[in-house]
Amino acid sequence: MSELVYSNISDISNIKIFGRLGKQRQPLPLLFNGSGIEVVVTGSDLWIDLETDSDFHEPWVAYEINGAFMGRQMLLPGKHRICLFRNMEPTTPKRVRFYRELQAMSEDDRCKVLVNGLEIDVNGCFMEVPAYEKKIEFIGDSITSGEGSYGAITDVDWLAMYMSASVNYATMTAKELQADYHLISQGGWGVFCGWDNDPRHNIPSIYEKVCGLATGPSNEKLGCQDPYDFKSWQPDVIVVNLGTNDISAFSQSPFLNPADGKTYKQHRNEDGSLNREDELKIENAVVNFLTMLRKNNPKAHIAWCYGMLYCDLNMTITEAMSKYREKSGDTNISFFQLPDTTPETYGAHMHPGRKSHEAAADALVLYLRKIMNW
Amino acid sequence: MSELVYSNISDISNIKIFGRLGKQRQPLPLLFNGSGIEVVVTGSDLWIDLETDSDFHEPWVAYEINGAFMGRQMLLPGKHRICLFRNMEPTTPKRVRFYRELQAMSEDDRCKVLVNGLEIDVNGCFMEVPAYEKKIEFIGDSITSGEGSYGAITDVDWLAMYMSASVNYATMTAKELQADYHLISQGGWGVFCGWDNDPRHNIPSIYEKVCGLATGPSNEKLGCQDPYDFKSWQPDVIVVNLGTNDISAFSQSPFLNPADGKTYKQHRNEDGSLNREDELKIENAVVNFLTMLRKNNPKAHIAWCYGMLYCDLNMTITEAMSKYREKSGDTNISFFQLPDTTPETYGAHMHPGRKSHEAAADALVLYLRKIMNW
Amino acid sequence: MSELVYSNISDISNIKIFGRLGKQRQPLPLLFNGSGIEVVVTGSDLWIDLETDSDFHEPWVAYEINGAFMGRQMLLPGKHRICLFRNMEPTTPKRVRFYRELQAMSEDDRCKVLVNGLEIDVNGCFMEVPAYEKKIEFIGDSITSGEGSYGAITDVDWLAMYMSASVNYATMTAKELQADYHLISQGGWGVFCGWDNDPRHNIPSIYEKVCGLATGPSNEKLGCQDPYDFKSWQPDVIVVNLGTNDISAFSQSPFLNPADGKTYKQHRNEDGSLNREDELKIENAVVNFLTMLRKNNPKAHIAWCYGMLYCDLNMTITEAMSKYREKSGDTNISFFQLPDTTPETYGAHMHPGRKSHEAAADALVLYLRKIMNW
Amino acid sequence: MSELVYSNISDISNIKIFGRLGKQRQPLPLLFNGSGIEVVVTGSDLWIDLETDSDFHEPWVAYEINGAFMGRQMLLPGKHRICLFRNMEPTTPKRVRFYRELQAMSEDDRCKVLVNGLEIDVNGCFMEVPAYEKKIEFIGDSITSGEGSYGAITDVDWLAMYMSASVNYATMTAKELQADYHLISQGGWGVFCGWDNDPRHNIPSIYEKVCGLATGPSNEKLGCQDPYDFKSWQPDVIVVNLGTNDISAFSQSPFLNPADGKTYKQHRNEDGSLNREDELKIENAVVNFLTMLRKNNPKAHIAWCYGMLYCDLNMTITEAMSKYREKSGDTNISFFQLPDTTPETYGAHMHPGRKSHEAAADALVLYLRKIMNW
Repeated sequence: MSELVYSNISDISNIKIFGRLGKQRQPLPLLFNGSGIEVVVTGSDLWIDLETDSDFHEPWVAYEINGAFMGRQMLLPGKHRICLFRNMEPTTPKRVRFYRELQAMSEDDRCKVLVNGLEIDVNGCFMEVPAYEKKIEFIGDSITSGEGSYGAITDVDWLAMYMSASVNYATMTAKELQADYHLISQGGWGVFCGWDNDPRHNIPSIYEKVCGLATGPSNEKLGCQDPYDFKSWQPDVIVVNLGTNDISAFSQSPFLNPADGKTYKQHRNEDGSLNREDELKIENAVVNFLTMLRKNNPKAHIAWCYGMLYCDLNMTITEAMSKYREKSGDTNISFFQLPDTTPETYGAHMHPGRKSHEAAADALVLYLRKIMNW
Repeated sequence: MSELVYSNISDISNIKIFGRLGKQRQPLPLLFNGSGIEVVVTGSDLWIDLETDSDFHEPWVAYEINGAFMGRQMLLPGKHRICLFRNMEPTTPKRVRFYRELQAMSEDDRCKVLVNGLEIDVNGCFMEVPAYEKKIEFIGDSITSGEGSYGAITDVDWLAMYMSASVNYATMTAKELQADYHLISQGGWGVFCGWDNDPRHNIPSIYEKVCGLATGPSNEKLGCQDPYDFKSWQPDVIVVNLGTNDISAFSQSPFLNPADGKTYKQHRNEDGSLNREDELKIENAVVNFLTMLRKNNPKAHIAWCYGMLYCDLNMTITEAMSKYREKSGDTNISFFQLPDTTPETYGAHMHPGRKSHEAAADALVLYLRKIMNW
Repeated sequence: MSELVYSNISDISNIKIFGRLGKQRQPLPLLFNGSGIEVVVTGSDLWIDLETDSDFHEPWVAYEINGAFMGRQMLLPGKHRICLFRNMEPTTPKRVRFYRELQAMSEDDRCKVLVNGLEIDVNGCFMEVPAYEKKIEFIGDSITSGEGSYGAITDVDWLAMYMSASVNYATMTAKELQADYHLISQGGWGVFCGWDNDPRHNIPSIYEKVCGLATGPSNEKLGCQDPYDFKSWQPDVIVVNLGTNDISAFSQSPFLNPADGKTYKQHRNEDGSLNREDELKIENAVVNFLTMLRKNNPKAHIAWCYGMLYCDLNMTITEAMSKYREKSGDTNISFFQLPDTTPETYGAHMHPGRKSHEAAADALVLYLRKIMNW
Repeated sequence: MSELVYSNISDISNIKIFGRLGKQRQPLPLLFNGSGIEVVVTGSDLWIDLETDSDFHEPWVAYEINGAFMGRQMLLPGKHRICLFRNMEPTTPKRVRFYRELQAMSEDDRCKVLVNGLEIDVNGCFMEVPAYEKKIEFIGDSITSGEGSYGAITDVDWLAMYMSASVNYATMTAKELQADYHLISQGGWGVFCGWDNDPRHNIPSIYEKVCGLATGPSNEKLGCQDPYDFKSWQPDVIVVNLGTNDISAFSQSPFLNPADGKTYKQHRNEDGSLNREDELKIENAVVNFLTMLRKNNPKAHIAWCYGMLYCDLNMTITEAMSKYREKSGDTNISFFQLPDTTPETYGAHMHPGRKSHEAAADALVLYLRKIMNW
């Protein structure tokens, strides 16, 4: 085995970091699924040194070489030293990406992945990472968290191992377009409320923080609750894939919010249509969220891309988008329906499986190429 | 060969007629693409007797046996006697559909297909045709007219032979759902104006007539310009696939309307976005058309299904639908985006080919099954 | 309509004729499925004049424009004048192929398709037809006759309309490779005997005649029973797709041959394996047929391509091929297994459907490209 | 976290072991790719304890839950304690398979995977593992070792990480048929010689030992070089996928065998055909191997399934099979060609990728169902 040399992540200039960043750079926290690092190295071996913590939901990570999936594993609390490759032809540059599979966990204050550094062959070096000219931000729920992208169709537990960035339309889309990307997503959350009517579980409430989902003292120390510096990374496109949980709330029991002691519930009319007042709550949330997105991303095209698990909220979302457009005069937005998951393309616990994510990515790539002139 | 017995179409009670009907029943005019007849017969042979007329655009017809495509041909003006099958096992019932491939032609006063009758084996009989429990009305443009569904990808002539009902998402959807269906479509037309800004080329203007597209004395005699009796056939769903030409008009030259001597043109703003005033013309047309559809089809679910050739008008159509919903209180409408045609699925002259129609039908079948509880 | 000018087929020098030819050139007989003519014409209109005869099994024909399928129809006895296109842009060259769908009929002495000539626009002309550099001869049974390539999966009649060259792996392969091709095939026939043990139904017995399958005085007059002039067309590859009926004979009742009053039957051993003596009859037939093919086609690569309906005869065919190779020293032969028809790819009466033919063509194209260095 | 209880592998009666076994059961060596263990457990957590050693080529392992792939990782020398799942619903039985990804390594005396035991929840238990009624033995080369099933299409290193049982036609076939299976394979080896003409690299030479590929004192101690007890596991079918390297040798340089100081080389004739003498060496090897297989597996159907990387040896293999059949009278053998890898289905370093393995599995499943009456 070759002799290895360790470098702190923050000391490596030839590195591409995926995912939102706050103030903390050493060790580097991987905050969202898809958050990760990419290097191009010569030398025969590459190792990554990291530290993780977690409680119920342990982080999973995945890694790829030259764009191809290679490994995926669970990381239990502690320090880890993972060999990403060894014994490779030393002079050939190898492009390696290592990334978090598990979404930012809103219910697990301990859950974190901290990358300390990399070890490479003493004769190897970090070469320039190919530039990603395009930038996409994906904002979503369990679909964008890759829930059910792993697991048998019959599996129904709600566990970390079933989520991923590796089998995920967002990652597939970004890779196909050779784009840098950010993922901000949370299973069960909506634009207005969660699948269970919980009004706290709305993405806009955490969007402006570095990783507002990650709470608790240790996450705060990492800067997760700091305001996110939007100027540091301005996307060309923002893909918003929200609505699936907002519609679900209409069919769920009322939710007693422990935060205010009040009960929340979205209602349907007797004929099954949405109660207009409740529908308007979603619409207000959409209008406000678009306003927030625009404020922070003045030039990005905002594409609301929805429909991988039914498209019942099409009329509601687009009505709100029209209101926002009318009010703001902002025409740099669009609505795009993603292909629905079919009986043949389901993954675990009634979520999109690999084939559904592939179909969504195919459609989205075609759409973004057209609309962005890419 | 067996001895054949002729029956007038109007004398055959065991027959299923597809497509809109006016007062004329003998000979039976097939007015739209997809308009046709279906019988289930015993006996060894089946012939159809018909008469056609045409000018530039000659009608094409197709026929199928037991649901499988068998033949397709051009019919030049005159009387025709076409053998649909012969020498088949006489006691086995054969289900046969014969239908028009060519859309109703708005530019060809002579174009028509008139079915006189059928000839069957003297020992055969007309058996009961399986009932079609579901009813769908498709309203569209060249896509629904199947333009380019036949022809090489390089073909650019605008000719009858490239259009069809046989390779057509509407037919595929209806067949998969075992549904009766009506097609009302015209290549180049929109909900507000034609692809070339011609304001006369809007589908609403002809919707309430039996076959308003077919003009001229002989067509009038057939009742094409009569008000259509909507009570005679109430669909469960109306699929409106319009908008592709309305968006096209924004990129075309002004149109000098010979009818009023005025010039018509939809404009884009300098940044490429739609001129709001012109966009609102489309929206008004959508609101008015939805109102017209609802008046004539009180119980039908109206699904605007759009997107097989880009989806640039999503925001416009849905804004109009929201206005209609707000104004009317009618919630029995929905918007559904059809899968876009890809480089791999184009047919002739940049229109959807077979694979695009198949993809659209797959998505639409899934959607209608869900929304209609089918 | 433009003024038309008629030319005898034999007077058109810019024409490509597909399929075997005998002495008869005016009118031109289309002897096999896939036999046809191709022209590239300018002018607005193209018509074909032909004459057909038939008894029980009527010929079907199909035509395509610029490589795309356009029409398909039955032709009953008589003279026919078929418009292949009209009103097309006159200066653009149009490549048109017209061909026979129905196999040469061994049981119908009357069945024939005779092309008299073509009519084109007085201002149009016959341009040079693109050269087909590669030549493939396909020899087969019902699969190569396209049996069941049309028709519903439940259809079981044995009729002309279910056969085709248009939905046929041989045509698809030739088109994909831009190759000229000949088809010699007959449903139910084998290399040694027919599906029903009829020893007369073997392809080698007719291979050396122009169209040995077409018997009777009128066919003889057309030269069908003449020795075929192999020098007139030497293929680069011969694809032999035989064996499906030879294996079937082992499971069928004995056949009483009216020609010699003897009974014929291929037997299985008690354990289900093939009776060795009977198996050797097939092997002899294979060896002799390979010898015959080589004698007449000295340079062609001979690829036995088998397996679209099971591959039970793999061991038998390859053993015979080895014997031939050992005996002759001829190494310019190969065995290639075609993909089996699956439950999803069946057409009518348990024969390959469109998807099976497509899969076979995909595999065969890949194989021929490799083995022929194409 | 729940309290865990450890059990030695040999103490667990409700366990299914995949892959060949020798005398050593505690710790349990996983000798081949696909070798592994399967349990069905209740309780919330499952851990596996193992020990690995290796030199250049480190073992990789993969695991699945309820039949779905979950993780895959490299194991460097040492003791490992891997959590296969945690926090699952405790009363629901979970079926878990853990298996070796890397082939038995013939060039790495240290390489081994030894499973010590499993830890389950104190409240959980090992339930009965579903019986696998069918048994298949796969014998092959790099294709069956899954070489290139992971990795980018441009990757050319020859490394452990590119091989797998998880993306492998053999595993896919066995799973689809719910069959138990054994894999005996080695990249670069043939039935007669290796890809580089090395005469020692032939599978028959190691077939009768437990894992003849694994040499050296420590492997001998594990019983790898012991005669394999064929009576312990009699397959219903043996799939032999060999020949790809034997044909390669004809295009490679001569090989100087250090074992005997002689040079070895398979030759082609000037016209590119195989030198008959050299071809007969392969045929002898095939005949002898079939004889060996039959001796050890009296009732198994032996299917030579070949062709995923060209099928140039079809004539040679089948000729040898015919010789064996003739000589032995054994008709319980067959030849089946697997679908070739296409430009769209390649994986890394010109080996079959995931789609090619899927296509091969689809074809093989269909074939085995027919031939075995499954």
